[in-house]
Amino acid sequence: MKSSQLFTRTSKTLPADETARNAQLLIQAGFIHKEMAGVYAYLPLGKRVLDNIAQIVREEMNAVGGQELQMTTLQPREIWEETNRWDDAVIDNWFKTKLKNGTELGVGLTHEEPIVDALKDFVNSYKDLPVMVYQIGPKFRNELRAKSGLLRGREFTMKDMYSFARTQAEHDELYEKVAEAYMRVYERLGLGDVTYRTYADGGYFTTKFSDEYQTVSPIGEDTIYIHDGKRVALNEEILTDENLEKLGIKRDELRQEKGVEVGNIFPLESKYSDALNMYFTDENGQQQSIIMGCYGIGVSRLVGMIAEHFADARGLVWPAAIAPAQVYLARLGDDAAVVAEANKLYDELMGQGIEVLYDDRDARPGEKFADADLIGLPHRVVISPKTVGGGFYEYKARTATEAEQLTGDDLRKKLGISV
Amino acid sequence: MKSSQLFTRTSKTLPADETARNAQLLIQAGFIHKEMAGVYAYLPLGKRVLDNIAQIVREEMNAVGGQELQMTTLQPREIWEETNRWDDAVIDNWFKTKLKNGTELGVGLTHEEPIVDALKDFVNSYKDLPVMVYQIGPKFRNELRAKSGLLRGREFTMKDMYSFARTQAEHDELYEKVAEAYMRVYERLGLGDVTYRTYADGGYFTTKFSDEYQTVSPIGEDTIYIHDGKRVALNEEILTDENLEKLGIKRDELRQEKGVEVGNIFPLESKYSDALNMYFTDENGQQQSIIMGCYGIGVSRLVGMIAEHFADARGLVWPAAIAPAQVYLARLGDDAAVVAEANKLYDELMGQGIEVLYDDRDARPGEKFADADLIGLPHRVVISPKTVGGGFYEYKARTATEAEQLTGDDLRKKLGISV
Repeated sequence: MKSSQLFTRTSKTLPADETARNAQLLIQAGFIHKEMAGVYAYLPLGKRVLDNIAQIVREEMNAVGGQELQMTTLQPREIWEETNRWDDAVIDNWFKTKLKNGTELGVGLTHEEPIVDALKDFVNSYKDLPVMVYQIGPKFRNELRAKSGLLRGREFTMKDMYSFARTQAEHDELYEKVAEAYMRVYERLGLGDVTYRTYADGGYFTTKFSDEYQTVSPIGEDTIYIHDGKRVALNEEILTDENLEKLGIKRDELRQEKGVEVGNIFPLESKYSDALNMYFTDENGQQQSIIMGCYGIGVSRLVGMIAEHFADARGLVWPAAIAPAQVYLARLGDDAAVVAEANKLYDELMGQGIEVLYDDRDARPGEKFADADLIGLPHRVVISPKTVGGGFYEYKARTATEAEQLTGDDLRKKLGISV
Repeated sequence: MKSSQLFTRTSKTLPADETARNAQLLIQAGFIHKEMAGVYAYLPLGKRVLDNIAQIVREEMNAVGGQELQMTTLQPREIWEETNRWDDAVIDNWFKTKLKNGTELGVGLTHEEPIVDALKDFVNSYKDLPVMVYQIGPKFRNELRAKSGLLRGREFTMKDMYSFARTQAEHDELYEKVAEAYMRVYERLGLGDVTYRTYADGGYFTTKFSDEYQTVSPIGEDTIYIHDGKRVALNEEILTDENLEKLGIKRDELRQEKGVEVGNIFPLESKYSDALNMYFTDENGQQQSIIMGCYGIGVSRLVGMIAEHFADARGLVWPAAIAPAQVYLARLGDDAAVVAEANKLYDELMGQGIEVLYDDRDARPGEKFADADLIGLPHRVVISPKTVGGGFYEYKARTATEAEQLTGDDLRKKLGISV
């Protein structure tokens, strides 16, 4: 992608109406556009990051047998009444709308009810289970305040998976399989070292814990207690002597940290399936309840979380796995030899499947370097009269402070090309 | 994908509450689930078709320089008031909702206003133009009636692209480039032979024609008049002597057909850009209007349109480019040699990147053949005691009436594998 063909530009100033650092940086770098508080459009660079995260999540859900589908945003009232989740007094963050004939509709804030309703058509016998389905798509929550940028949106992108099992043992097995897949997701996103599976409150209809995934970060709004030996954590909300005993953990083995919740998984028991009359017939012809689990990852929250977590004073710093491109290629000046060399390297890298953001603009070197830092691609390569004359490339990793002079072979090695 | 790992099943009966053939078939085959009239969820097979169509559209929009982004469903009232499109008396199919503080929001039915509003931050100078941006995502329209299945939804998936040009000549060039890209989309979808660029009414603010893409089909609701020599058509709504003269077409050169509108492109002149105060400064420092175009393809409508257009009495018939898988592999019985041979072929084809739906269920042959026909993958391969004993494969194209016996080499050739 050439800068001259990308409509976004970086801004020298921070947006006036944002207090969240993630949204400030992403707007300044041209990744997102604010429609209103908690509602952001994804511009080309931001869309790539969002899609890259979604694809990693998709691959890991597919690997544990998740089947992808796409539920709807418009929701019929009836199925939510069956679980007592329609009333605004029970669920206080619905957006609702109306058909022309006055019929009230919900604007999808989660999808347990419609998923159960859809699967009822297909799941009747023990032979039809277990099943796991998931989607990656929009959710809408009518938050009173939305001041955390992408960390808490009114409209956001979520991966939600739902499991359906015949027995508690079968459920537990699926649940653990997904729990492991979640850790693989965070590892691939570059957050593995600082992300902990965290015991949390299971909600009002189960005595079990739920599991959160908490990334240790100074921007965290949750307080967690980490047990380094077991590599798990407890959310402050469940830190009681009774729970510690249940978990076989001593209070003085824990260290306190701030965490950002980057995912959560819940045992739902048979609350939704029973309420919506979804049962199965077992081997003996008996009707049985179905044990459900649900598994959420806030995909757009991760865009904001990763942006803010890795950023430094100069701008964004993207992990390679989700960066909108790998290389920021800055061409300095329009000397024919410089243009030829930069074009050649651009074509070579793109041909190798290495995505390049080629800064081919007529702009000062300082402006190009500042943009490279703000946008935060993993690698920066400079082609200038000096590098062409000297027969080398100027290379800097985004995380390095100094640029270095590399031969063509060494540059290609840095970028993962075999020479 | 193995049938035993796919949660959907075909149904022997048509859904009772559907009159549209496309939705009937897609529900019966397990591709979609009806949430309410005009609102459908995409189950795994349907999601694949939807994604395959979206990917073809994406590639062709990228090829003409479109930059992909993702706008929001929640819409602030203000920008729509600036173009006088907020009032329900002007736009009669809005869904609207409210923030907790009572502020009314729109639920995105199209995106001219927010796109212009977002691009205003980046487009100021003649150097920033031309630009084309597009998205593939949900649209919401509060239709009074929704009885056409996926052909006219209340919630549906659309590709909408918007072009911004400095002059009428530059606009015309972009417009023609996209018009040609549209024909490539329909060709790749298997509709090239029967799809016509069709002159239609330009709407109330331009005297120009707009262009529809109409696919000739018995299910069409539009009447079009085709000129075979020029390979264009006229929508009935503009068939006047004056227009015929303008187009240099004689009435007796036209033949009448029924058409399904599978896309449309509009010259917007500077209606939206002017209304939202988006201008550019030209080479002489003068402020100038920006000429816009918009370009729509109903991606989910195409799922329904293609489903209904190609279906026969036995079920769906998917063009190879968008089929949810290429091969329906039916294993008859569970004889060890049959299982081994079927597993081996499944692994080989999947390894070659040929997607297989492997019917490994314990079901009667007649049921498997009926499902193969209903689901409509391009190729059916049967492995049975007879084929294993005889050292051949039983092959049938979905469009053929008779199965044939093929050697391994001939089968692989049919499936596009070099032997």
